[in-house]
Amino acid sequence: MKRSKPLQAALMATPEEIEAQFYEALHQGDIDKLMAVWSDDDDIACAHPGGARVHGHAAARSVFEMMFAQGGVAAQPLQVRRTACGGSVAIHHVLQSVAVKTANGPDTACMLVTNVYVKTPRGWRLMVHHASNGSADELEAPAERGAALLH
Amino acid sequence: MKRSKPLQAALMATPEEIEAQFYEALHQGDIDKLMAVWSDDDDIACAHPGGARVHGHAAARSVFEMMFAQGGVAAQPLQVRRTACGGSVAIHHVLQSVAVKTANGPDTACMLVTNVYVKTPRGWRLMVHHASNGSADELEAPAERGAALLH
Repeated sequence: MKRSKPLQAALMATPEEIEAQFYEALHQGDIDKLMAVWSDDDDIACAHPGGARVHGHAAARSVFEMMFAQGGVAAQPLQVRRTACGGSVAIHHVLQSVAVKTANGPDTACMLVTNVYVKTPRGWRLMVHHASNGSADELEAPAERGAALLH
Repeated sequence: MKRSKPLQAALMATPEEIEAQFYEALHQGDIDKLMAVWSDDDDIACAHPGGARVHGHAAARSVFEMMFAQGGVAAQPLQVRRTACGGSVAIHHVLQSVAVKTANGPDTACMLVTNVYVKTPRGWRLMVHHASNGSADELEAPAERGAALLH
């Protein structure tokens, strides 16, 4: 269903709330909800495994629209390690699982995600999303590396 | 040769100078020079293709020591797109080539690197280095995507 106007992220949302909306939008395959988490800055950047890095809203939207062509994405943040950089930038190091289809049936892949959030007049928004393939070992014993558990 | 005291990065170095030192240290396989570019913060983070993400100086040092066991790394920044986040954080989106050995002989791989720099009392330092595999297509026509040329 095409909405008459784009969804907004909550006014004065925290980085945690924006990240929660990002993953909710991925699950639902909801492009408007997903695009609402980004900063308005033309320099927003998005990189996924196997793809080029893109900048700006139009290019980022295209990437996620292609991703959602088959429906939502079963990505799940398993751990998040947060670093505050001054009062206006927050870096989230996310260890993420994602359901994938392989020749041997459904499987779970591990991804390393760096999300950078910036404080804007409307609240925190996503500036950078860099996702890359991690090692499956990390899904088995993530707590051993001392990262903070999300759940 | 083991140095009696670690190399320092230049006092009040800019993000550009720190990035130049990072790539110089990679080329030279110089672990002290490379570690000097990082922030003192325990939350520094480093992720490379095929490896786990590590945090902190000791873990980052181990990763690069293993990398340098065979000598320097012929990595070359081809393009850098820079984003200032307030006055104390700078994000560099680097398109990087790296010489690799394959079954068919030497080749050049493309990598997408996100470097996050923070302003410290001693000058700018590296906080996050996230490198992942890019597509070889990017090495052929990088200028088409409108990123700023480094050289």
